[in-house]
Amino acid sequence: MRKVPDGQMMRPNRKTNGSGIQAPETRICVVMVGLPARGKSLIAQKVVRYLRWLSVDAKTFNVGQYRRTTTPNPSAEFFDTSNAEGERMRKAAAEAAVTDMIKWFDNGEGLVAILDATNSTKARRRWIQDRCDAANVQTMFVESKCDDEELVMSNIKEVKTTSPDYLGQDPEVAAQDFRKRIRNYEKVYETLDEDEADLTYCKLIDVGHQVIINKIQDYLQSRVVYYLMNLHIKPRSIWLSRHGESEYNLSGKIGGDANISERGQMYAKKLPEIVKQSAGDLELTVWTSTLKRTIQTSKYLPFEKLSWKALDELDSGVCDSLTYAEIEERYPADFKARDDDKYNYRYLGGESYRDVVIRLEPIIMELERSENILIVTHQAVLRCIYAYFMGVDQAKSPWMEVPLHTLIKLSPRAYGTQEERYSAKIPAVSTWRGKGSKAQHEDPGPGQGTVDIEVNGKPTK
Amino acid sequence: MRKVPDGQMMRPNRKTNGSGIQAPETRICVVMVGLPARGKSLIAQKVVRYLRWLSVDAKTFNVGQYRRTTTPNPSAEFFDTSNAEGERMRKAAAEAAVTDMIKWFDNGEGLVAILDATNSTKARRRWIQDRCDAANVQTMFVESKCDDEELVMSNIKEVKTTSPDYLGQDPEVAAQDFRKRIRNYEKVYETLDEDEADLTYCKLIDVGHQVIINKIQDYLQSRVVYYLMNLHIKPRSIWLSRHGESEYNLSGKIGGDANISERGQMYAKKLPEIVKQSAGDLELTVWTSTLKRTIQTSKYLPFEKLSWKALDELDSGVCDSLTYAEIEERYPADFKARDDDKYNYRYLGGESYRDVVIRLEPIIMELERSENILIVTHQAVLRCIYAYFMGVDQAKSPWMEVPLHTLIKLSPRAYGTQEERYSAKIPAVSTWRGKGSKAQHEDPGPGQGTVDIEVNGKPTK
Repeated sequence: MRKVPDGQMMRPNRKTNGSGIQAPETRICVVMVGLPARGKSLIAQKVVRYLRWLSVDAKTFNVGQYRRTTTPNPSAEFFDTSNAEGERMRKAAAEAAVTDMIKWFDNGEGLVAILDATNSTKARRRWIQDRCDAANVQTMFVESKCDDEELVMSNIKEVKTTSPDYLGQDPEVAAQDFRKRIRNYEKVYETLDEDEADLTYCKLIDVGHQVIINKIQDYLQSRVVYYLMNLHIKPRSIWLSRHGESEYNLSGKIGGDANISERGQMYAKKLPEIVKQSAGDLELTVWTSTLKRTIQTSKYLPFEKLSWKALDELDSGVCDSLTYAEIEERYPADFKARDDDKYNYRYLGGESYRDVVIRLEPIIMELERSENILIVTHQAVLRCIYAYFMGVDQAKSPWMEVPLHTLIKLSPRAYGTQEERYSAKIPAVSTWRGKGSKAQHEDPGPGQGTVDIEVNGKPTK
Repeated sequence: MRKVPDGQMMRPNRKTNGSGIQAPETRICVVMVGLPARGKSLIAQKVVRYLRWLSVDAKTFNVGQYRRTTTPNPSAEFFDTSNAEGERMRKAAAEAAVTDMIKWFDNGEGLVAILDATNSTKARRRWIQDRCDAANVQTMFVESKCDDEELVMSNIKEVKTTSPDYLGQDPEVAAQDFRKRIRNYEKVYETLDEDEADLTYCKLIDVGHQVIINKIQDYLQSRVVYYLMNLHIKPRSIWLSRHGESEYNLSGKIGGDANISERGQMYAKKLPEIVKQSAGDLELTVWTSTLKRTIQTSKYLPFEKLSWKALDELDSGVCDSLTYAEIEERYPADFKARDDDKYNYRYLGGESYRDVVIRLEPIIMELERSENILIVTHQAVLRCIYAYFMGVDQAKSPWMEVPLHTLIKLSPRAYGTQEERYSAKIPAVSTWRGKGSKAQHEDPGPGQGTVDIEVNGKPTK
């Protein structure tokens, strides 16, 4: 820690922050390009989440949302290019979105904006390019080109059930109308090609299969491209669990490499049943940390297992193997500093949540390119992974409650991530500690021995 | 730090290491593809350096070197495909290189091998693919396709003066022969295309301009692609300097944010002249850290300046603003631990060299895509950057001597990086500390007031 002139200790600089290295004046508009049902909104939403997770301020400007303020439930005819009135209103929506976006940049509210729309003609793209040039904003066009019928159909199916355009409509009618809308776009659609060789672009073909990258200009752009390169947009789920209750949990100590307790063993034995209940007959792959308690917890799962160093618990440095009460006694200033800014606080000789996010980035990249993964890991690490998928704020994520003996299923969708929680109903101490508290790990008493399921926070039968 | 059973302290896990997250059984052969003079060897060499810098064991297998054992100075006719004997010998060289490579993998010596050769036909590539498949090694083909005449000519010029094939020959004759050799390859050259859609490949078009990425499979591959995406291979140089002597240097303290001393000021004033001597009339951009001593040192340079948090000195945590003698007194165990493994040692509440390398990665990426950069930074940071360009071993890099008041010019070339050092001949304390020493910063006495120049360690006039 660096001393400031008056002798007080200053917090260490946040050196490893991905955003910190960008020249501050760089502002990027990521312009989505593609026919409907090509996963554009999902990609846009993911890029924003990813950047925010890395502490880069980012926001999506969805032209559809602007258009819905005047035309909430348009029929396919609205999108017919021979419909002059529809055309005029769609252009007005684009204009409003771009104007708001530039205002957002000028107010210093962020570094990366995503303009989410079909932007399907060269003329429209040139218009955006000119508007951004004039506002001193870099553009990067991101086209999702996908001719995989199956993938497009699965996206159509998803859109018809989740798009605000079809709210409350008969799903079959909605799907039919949506297919018609796509045909209207197809008539005028122009893919990014050599005519636009002067533009910075990234063309994703059958997402995850082939990527064409043109004229990438700086670090933040290349960072976004790197992320896009690793994406696939097929619908799938991710399963998360903490290790079963450990002997350190029982004695209230943090860190260490303890065995799981008797009740932790019970959870390990029950886990295959809970997983089956949630994932059916899917063949999962289990990722654990290198610490005993995660490996022991996954012992009975009938799947391939991989141990990752990057999934090890937040390193609590000199505080490893102490209780919170001991930490408060021995390092009172640090204990308070951690409460004041838990995300940035780095244990002496250890790590901060920010450090954990950085080392988790490869895990996130691998997760993005994988299917059917169950991660068994630790409280702080699970919070960081959860925060990535659910878009939880940095200030809040270190304080989230992630109970022991609970399986979490996350299903990222175009308009948000669905969450299901399966409580094993096997009692365990609570390791959650509120701000300012010493977290006496309390025994919650005996459980019911069945599985409780919650979907998006609401209990089900 | 985690306690091991017998009560001793174990060194913290090296969690943030890029290689640590790869499933250990992954082995990748990066197969270069491209006509001669397309920068293949330079790319291969850079990828190896980059991976090693990130602690991933990597090695180049250059088919030309195997061929030179039987045919040290071949004429262009040797490379004519109608020359059956030449063809046979070239295939034998490829065979020998691939066999050695697989042996290298099987001995567990590394994770990434680069097969450096033209590999200019689909048949040859399929043969390599089959050999690697059989050995359970993933392949990733990297084609450098470049029709930029100027760039090719500049590569030809470089090769004729540095390639072992033309050792001791008349440069003009060599260039002519080399152009003929290229024409022989052009006759049979097949670029990577849709016939090879099943292969994992990365096609670099006019390096840095357009990149096509096909079927990238895992993290390490995507990491290499990310690096390739950021490369350009135009010949250029990078200038490095430490800040001028600081007041902390004078009092032997580490860290802090002190002003430069009177002699530091002299260096700052002389720096523009030294830079001009080395860079001529080139318009440079100056990158400094956010600390005063680097900003003050670059004050008189007539160029644009950018401050990067990532260029700040290694954070010495609780030892900040102490002298080495004080550190030894207050933290004797740490002082020794640091000497034992300086690269991995993380100051309490601070950073290790390994941490610095990780936060420098974005700087390296930006450096790779930039031209004409002068970096004014700090001892540890400069060591890490220098180690990247010169391929210095991790164990050695933290001990390298990088004197104050010296400008370093690095010029990466296809067969190694050329180094020039310009000593300002302005006296300064030595901040270099040998293993086990307390580094009494000594005053070296008055300097001569002229500029001393060394090229690759040898003094010039």
